[in-house]
Amino acid sequence: MENKNMLMIPGPTPVPEAVLLAMAKAPIGHRTGAFSKVIAELTENLKWLHQTSGDVLMLTASGTGVMEAGIINFLSPGDRVLVGDNGKFGERWGKVAKAYGLNVDIIKAEWGKPLDPEAFTAKLTEDKEKAIKAVIITHSETSTGVLNDLESINKAVKDHGEALIIVDAVTSLGAYNIPIDEWGLDVVGSGSQKGYMIPPGLGFVSVSKKAWKAYETAKLPRFYLDLGKYKKATDEDSSPFTPPVNLMYGLQASLQMMRREGLAAIFARHQRLTQMTRAGMRALDLPLYAADSWASTAITAVAPTLVDAEKIRSTLNKKFDIAVAGGQDHLKGKIFRIGHLGFASERDILTVIAAIEATLIELGVEGVTPGAGVAAAASVMVQG
Amino acid sequence: MENKNMLMIPGPTPVPEAVLLAMAKAPIGHRTGAFSKVIAELTENLKWLHQTSGDVLMLTASGTGVMEAGIINFLSPGDRVLVGDNGKFGERWGKVAKAYGLNVDIIKAEWGKPLDPEAFTAKLTEDKEKAIKAVIITHSETSTGVLNDLESINKAVKDHGEALIIVDAVTSLGAYNIPIDEWGLDVVGSGSQKGYMIPPGLGFVSVSKKAWKAYETAKLPRFYLDLGKYKKATDEDSSPFTPPVNLMYGLQASLQMMRREGLAAIFARHQRLTQMTRAGMRALDLPLYAADSWASTAITAVAPTLVDAEKIRSTLNKKFDIAVAGGQDHLKGKIFRIGHLGFASERDILTVIAAIEATLIELGVEGVTPGAGVAAAASVMVQG
Repeated sequence: MENKNMLMIPGPTPVPEAVLLAMAKAPIGHRTGAFSKVIAELTENLKWLHQTSGDVLMLTASGTGVMEAGIINFLSPGDRVLVGDNGKFGERWGKVAKAYGLNVDIIKAEWGKPLDPEAFTAKLTEDKEKAIKAVIITHSETSTGVLNDLESINKAVKDHGEALIIVDAVTSLGAYNIPIDEWGLDVVGSGSQKGYMIPPGLGFVSVSKKAWKAYETAKLPRFYLDLGKYKKATDEDSSPFTPPVNLMYGLQASLQMMRREGLAAIFARHQRLTQMTRAGMRALDLPLYAADSWASTAITAVAPTLVDAEKIRSTLNKKFDIAVAGGQDHLKGKIFRIGHLGFASERDILTVIAAIEATLIELGVEGVTPGAGVAAAASVMVQG
Repeated sequence: MENKNMLMIPGPTPVPEAVLLAMAKAPIGHRTGAFSKVIAELTENLKWLHQTSGDVLMLTASGTGVMEAGIINFLSPGDRVLVGDNGKFGERWGKVAKAYGLNVDIIKAEWGKPLDPEAFTAKLTEDKEKAIKAVIITHSETSTGVLNDLESINKAVKDHGEALIIVDAVTSLGAYNIPIDEWGLDVVGSGSQKGYMIPPGLGFVSVSKKAWKAYETAKLPRFYLDLGKYKKATDEDSSPFTPPVNLMYGLQASLQMMRREGLAAIFARHQRLTQMTRAGMRALDLPLYAADSWASTAITAVAPTLVDAEKIRSTLNKKFDIAVAGGQDHLKGKIFRIGHLGFASERDILTVIAAIEATLIELGVEGVTPGAGVAAAASVMVQG
């Protein structure tokens, strides 16, 4: 049905009406006192969301641009880095590091499985001469729905003492508790079209004091992505280059909503939606691609065996106007992915499960108990 | 008065209601057939606007990001480049080139004066061994309101034969005729918040076949700004990274408006607004910072002698809610700049001139003939 779209992909995520309307305001000059106030408010609220008293900078860029900035500002050609790779995004940060001539050591895990913190500990413990300058990991691997054990890997990095930890939190920030200051995370990148509940186009990166220390001697070339320029401007409630004014109006509205909900409630909601989704899929005999113990709270990947994943996806889309994501690369046709981050509620989860039930029945999958998925999800909700 | 803002700065420029409302639509997935159609339409209309059958690529970036991409994709460390510098932006491209270890030869002109094409011809003619790999110039220098003689400089580059011409057309594209294919311009960068009539956040770069040839051997590091990735995706009506969906909805609406107006009419309008503005300022004895023969059609810089430029600017803002820009760097307090590009009409020019007249009277400037500015502008309009 026209105009009836329901977005349940890992990004863009649904955008609240208040945010859409805020974005439709006429822009004002970005070098005015009025806009400085907007930047000051955004910066304060971003620090709250990042649980940090350090710097959180805004860039006009996608998540990839932000992660590239997070890497190239703190390293020099030939520096040794460890990169965790258990999915499409981990793989990408390895490519970025190689494109800049870093000495890249990839620590792999199978897609669908988490990175092994022990593998990081081993490499970091071996490194007596402290040659490893950074560890780059993806927290929530969007391609598989796996949440890597950031806390444990970070502990290994802290024991090493020298290396920075650079985190892709693109789909986890705002969906999972990441206490940046408490854990001492050096660089954390994220993007607007995820937990932030605003459309794509804005990226965010938090930077620790230790990372700024590394910045002083880092020699990789950069200009537009030079975070020092962003810090200098942000300290003056300004921006180094023309910022995306209307997206920032949207961000203003969304961060105000997030503050009203509160961090603990936001994280609990994502946890609850994840458990509801998983219970629903289980009740429908749809195998979950990632195990419970490392399930992302942003996205759930489902690997149906009795029916093609793309058929489910396409029926959900055609019959119910619900967009879920397909598998990427070698997982194409093998999984579908339900996004439940940002502006997502219990109602959305009941809806998508109900639609999946109906889809399975429509596709003639045998053994589906009508109502079982929704009932299981509702039960989790009531308990949780 | 609250909410009564009138934007007459060189960017962000005013945004039509149709564009603002288009941006307030709920985003859809960027990897869908429906969004591919949007990208295909945008690409076709961007080629029309750029007067090229070559590639026009869209990046989530400010104008600076786009120009950096335009430079680093086609060059290798140590390559010799000529950079024209007669204002803040020309100066910036020199800094970008240096940040990437290029061998940079700056050709300067005084602020307020255009670059001398002869200076380029001399350097390029001397270069028998064809060591110069690119000439980087700013077409409309936003900081001074000077339009550089792109056509003549480009002829010198074409006579050289080897060097690429890389053009910052951020405030000239859509405000002045730039026939990219006819002139053989290799790389032309521009930004959304200018002639495009949409808010900041999207950048554009056109790339010639000759530039793609250079790309094949260019060795400067890049990933997010790697234009090869954008070309590959654009050829499939897609994007390499999550694109700013809502800004692209806005662009869809604005390009449709531009096609209805027509290129010749758009350029004639900008020409007319420029002449009206200049006639108005002259009639009020307000000196123009750039001479007629090199006046930008995007912005007019005014250098008042009898009263502080910032006083005029501040009164325009406080009394009439009209935002004009101040001077940058050493021109701070010495000039104010009236933007008349994008969604600007004759009515806006009459309005700002009337407000400037009233401001001069309010500030007690002697010798102002009430109505003279508006009359002069109206007369130009009627003739023009």
